[in-house]
Amino acid sequence: MPVRFYNGLLPMKARVYVSIKPTILDPQGQTICSALIGLGHTEISSVRQGKYFEIGLTEGTSPVDAAKALEEIARDVLSNPVIEEYRVEILD
Amino acid sequence: MPVRFYNGLLPMKARVYVSIKPTILDPQGQTICSALIGLGHTEISSVRQGKYFEIGLTEGTSPVDAAKALEEIARDVLSNPVIEEYRVEILD
Repeated sequence: MPVRFYNGLLPMKARVYVSIKPTILDPQGQTICSALIGLGHTEISSVRQGKYFEIGLTEGTSPVDAAKALEEIARDVLSNPVIEEYRVEILD
Repeated sequence: MPVRFYNGLLPMKARVYVSIKPTILDPQGQTICSALIGLGHTEISSVRQGKYFEIGLTEGTSPVDAAKALEEIARDVLSNPVIEEYRVEILD
């Protein structure tokens, strides 16, 4: 495995996970759950579907700027804060 | 924080991530990427959208059975192996 030096300025990747709040009904997930049980997968008790985004960042973006921008993007663009919650994960 | 004992038979949770293969075009992700850059987020270089499923397993399912069932479900039901790839993550 090559040795990697991380100087904080290499292109980074991030993942944003958006899921429906636990208190909100998810009919799509319920349908998948019923279908799976119908197919014989009785070990499944619940399914909730969410979205996920793999985001590439331009070279030279600092981790601090990236975290700030991603938080803003996740909150304002990728999720609906009324019914959804999000989680941001920054990879190197 | 309460001490937790894991006997391998408690209800488990799992996550399945489905994303489009890197070689396949993702017009939806490209549209989101353009929109974000248009909104001034010039630190973004690429976006790819995927799906993600949070799956609850019935009490008493063993981790081995769960892993087998989830692999099958992810491959046969939740993803289209021609254009998508998946990743299964089992939480306790």
